[in-house]
Amino acid sequence: MPAGDPTDVVRALAERAREASHELALATRATKDAALHAMAEALLARGDELLAANAEDVARAEAAGTPPNVVDRLRLTDERLVAMAQGLRDVAGLPDPVGEVVRGSTLANGLELRQVRVPFGVVGMIYEARPNVTADAAGICLKSGNAVLLRGSSSAASSNAAILAVLRDAVAGAGLPADVVQLVPAGSRETVTALMRARGLVDVLVPRGGAGLIRSVVEGSTVPVIETGVGNCHVYVDAAADLDRALAVVLNSKTHRTSVCNSAESLLVHADLVDTFLPTVVAALQDAGVVVHGDETVARLPGVEPATDEDHAREYLSMDISAAVVADVDGAIAHIRRFSSGHTEAILTRDQDAARRFVAAVDSAAVLVNASTRFTDGGEFGFGAEIGISTQKLHARGPMGLPEMTSTKYVVTGEGHVR
Amino acid sequence: MPAGDPTDVVRALAERAREASHELALATRATKDAALHAMAEALLARGDELLAANAEDVARAEAAGTPPNVVDRLRLTDERLVAMAQGLRDVAGLPDPVGEVVRGSTLANGLELRQVRVPFGVVGMIYEARPNVTADAAGICLKSGNAVLLRGSSSAASSNAAILAVLRDAVAGAGLPADVVQLVPAGSRETVTALMRARGLVDVLVPRGGAGLIRSVVEGSTVPVIETGVGNCHVYVDAAADLDRALAVVLNSKTHRTSVCNSAESLLVHADLVDTFLPTVVAALQDAGVVVHGDETVARLPGVEPATDEDHAREYLSMDISAAVVADVDGAIAHIRRFSSGHTEAILTRDQDAARRFVAAVDSAAVLVNASTRFTDGGEFGFGAEIGISTQKLHARGPMGLPEMTSTKYVVTGEGHVR
Repeated sequence: MPAGDPTDVVRALAERAREASHELALATRATKDAALHAMAEALLARGDELLAANAEDVARAEAAGTPPNVVDRLRLTDERLVAMAQGLRDVAGLPDPVGEVVRGSTLANGLELRQVRVPFGVVGMIYEARPNVTADAAGICLKSGNAVLLRGSSSAASSNAAILAVLRDAVAGAGLPADVVQLVPAGSRETVTALMRARGLVDVLVPRGGAGLIRSVVEGSTVPVIETGVGNCHVYVDAAADLDRALAVVLNSKTHRTSVCNSAESLLVHADLVDTFLPTVVAALQDAGVVVHGDETVARLPGVEPATDEDHAREYLSMDISAAVVADVDGAIAHIRRFSSGHTEAILTRDQDAARRFVAAVDSAAVLVNASTRFTDGGEFGFGAEIGISTQKLHARGPMGLPEMTSTKYVVTGEGHVR
Repeated sequence: MPAGDPTDVVRALAERAREASHELALATRATKDAALHAMAEALLARGDELLAANAEDVARAEAAGTPPNVVDRLRLTDERLVAMAQGLRDVAGLPDPVGEVVRGSTLANGLELRQVRVPFGVVGMIYEARPNVTADAAGICLKSGNAVLLRGSSSAASSNAAILAVLRDAVAGAGLPADVVQLVPAGSRETVTALMRARGLVDVLVPRGGAGLIRSVVEGSTVPVIETGVGNCHVYVDAAADLDRALAVVLNSKTHRTSVCNSAESLLVHADLVDTFLPTVVAALQDAGVVVHGDETVARLPGVEPATDEDHAREYLSMDISAAVVADVDGAIAHIRRFSSGHTEAILTRDQDAARRFVAAVDSAAVLVNASTRFTDGGEFGFGAEIGISTQKLHARGPMGLPEMTSTKYVVTGEGHVR
C-alpha cells in the first residue's frame, strides 16, 4: 500500500480519476471499444503474469486455512482468463449508453429540449474475493464513460494488482488515460471508509458482496450508494397452479445454484394444497438434498426442521429453504411484505386475477409469474453485461446494465430566449 | 407536538404511512384524481380556517422580528389559496406515471419482460417556510402513488397543521386512507434526525430549502436522499456570441428573479470581449441595480468589487453577480468545473463547435445554448408539476416531475420457465 494516510491516498486517487473522467466522458464509442478489445487481448497475452500473481493469493489463502470453496472462487485459470477477456469483448459489442437521447421535445416557445445520457463521472466499486469482478467492473465502467476506483479484498490483492497493471497498460495503449481504471489499496479498512466519505470526488459507490459489507457501506456513506444483491426470494404456489410446473420451478429456483442472490430461500404454499402438493414438494426438495425449515403446518411433515422468524427472513445461500402455508394470495403478499428483502418473488398460478394481484401488490425489484426466480439476471434479461442487481428503489432497481451506470443531463437550445 | 420520544413519534407516523401506501399504490388514476380535486375544493371551502391559522404564524413571526420578505413568504391570502387549489387540479390533469411501461420485450425463451413504473412507497419531505409547499408536495406525492411525511418549519406550524387537517379530510372523503398525507411535528430538530434515520420505513427523502438544510440531510441521512436546488449558475459569453442577445440573456438570467436557484450567479466573458462587450454588460448590470464582483480584469471597471474565490463559488440569491474573463470556451469549462454547483450553465455563441464543446464538457443538470438560465424549471420544461430541481446524478437530475417520484419494477411472465 502506498505511503501516507489512507484518506489522503484515496483522495489523491479520486482526484486523478476525476481528471481522467473528463477525457473519458468525451471519448467516442470507437475509442472505448478499441480500449476494451485491447484490455481483452492483454489479459490473454499476459496470462502468465496474472496466474503467477494469483498463485500468491491462493497460497496465502490456503496457508490461512481458507475453506476450499472460497479458495476456488479466488483462483484464476486459463479458462477463467478467457472468460474475463470474452466479457470485455461482449461489453465492446453493446451499444454505448452515453449520448442516448432519453426524451426530447420542442417547447411552445421554440426551445429545443433534450435529456441525454451522460456518465456519472467517478464510480467506486467495493467488492469481495473474486478477481474476475475487477475486469468486469473495469469494462462496464469504461464503456459507460466512468472512471472507476476498484476496492477489492485484501485476499485478492496480488491478483488485482496484476490485473490492474495489465488493464491500465492496455487502456493507455488505446489512447485513453490509464487513470480511468485505478486500484484502491486493500491493506486497511480505512480505505473503504475514505471512499465512503469522498462526497464530491466520487459520484456513486456500488458495494458488491455479503450483507454485512453492503449494510456498512449503505449506512456509513455520504457518497450516494447503489445497494445490491441481498435476496430472500420467495416462490408462492397458488391453489390454481399447474402443479407439475410449480414443482419444477420450485426445484429450479432453489437448487439450480444456491450461492447466488436470485435463488429461492422461501417457499409459500396455498392452504388448499396442504395435503396434496405440500408433501410432494417437500419430499422432492429433500430428495434433492435441501433442508426444509417449515412453519407449524409444514413441520408436521417428516424431516422438516421447525422455522423461526429468523429462518423466514434469512438469505441462506445454501441447500436450505424456509416454508410456510398461507391462506391465499393475500396471505402470501402479507408474508412477503414482512420477510422479503425486495429482490425477487414468484407466483405459480393459472388464475389471472391472483397473478394480477400478486404482481401489483408485491413491491420487489422483480416479480415473476410462472417462472423461476433464477431469471432475475442481467444476462437472462438480455442486458449483455451486469454490474450487480439493485435492491433499492432510487435510480436503478433490479439487474443493472450499462444504462444504469449513467446519469442524464438536459440540453436546451434557443436563439437568445429569455423569460 | 404529540407526546413521546421524537424518534418513536416519527417511526409511528412512518409505519402508518407505509400501511397507507400499500392501498395508495393500487389506487387507479380516477381515484387519485378525484382525491386531488376534493383536496382543491376543500382548500377553498375551508379557506377561513386556513387564513386564521396562518394569521397565528404571521403574528408569531412578526412578534419575533422576522424580516418582512420572510413574513411575506409565510403569508397565505385568498389569491394564494386559489393558486394552491389550482396546483392540485393541474396535477390531477397530468398523466399517471404509475403503471407506465418503461421498456419491454419478449426474451428468446419466450419470457415476457416489462419494466413498469411503481411508487417509491413512503416519501419524506423536509422543507422551510412557505406553506404552499405543503399542498404542492401532498398533491405530487399522492398522484405518484406515494404516502408522504411532511416536515415543514416550525414557523409555519399552525398553517401546516390546518392545511393537513383539510387535505386529510378530503383524501378520506375520496375513499383513500387519510394517512397517505401526514405532518411530522416541527417542534424539535430531532424529528428531522428521526426521518433521516428511518431507513426501511421511509424510501426517499427530498430536502427543499437553504444550502445548510440540504447539506445536513445529505450528509447525515441513512435514507436515500434526492439533493435539490443549490444553484451557482454560470452564463458564458463567447467571442462569437450575438452580443445583443447575450446582453438580454445575461440580464434576464440575473435579474428576472434573484431569489431562485436557476438565476445566474456568475458571468464569464471571452477575453476578446474585454474592451467591447465587457464594459457594456457590466454597466447594464449595474444600471439594473446589480453589484458586480469581478476578477482582476473586470475589477478595473468602475464600481466593480474585487471578487474572491468565495465570490466565484457563491449562490448569492440577491442582486449580486461574480464575473471573470476567460481565454476561451475551454477556460470557461475549467472555471465552471472549479466553481459550479452543477445546476445550470449557459453559453452564448453562434459558433457551432464552441456550443458543441461546451454542451459535451460541462457536467451540470442543465446546459443551455443561447437561452436564459431561468428556463431550468419543471414548468418551463412542460412537466406540469415540479417537486424540486435535483443537482445530484443518481436517480433524477434537473427538474423533477411526477415520473421522477417513482421507481420501477420488472414483471416477468412465463409458463413454467426454468433455467
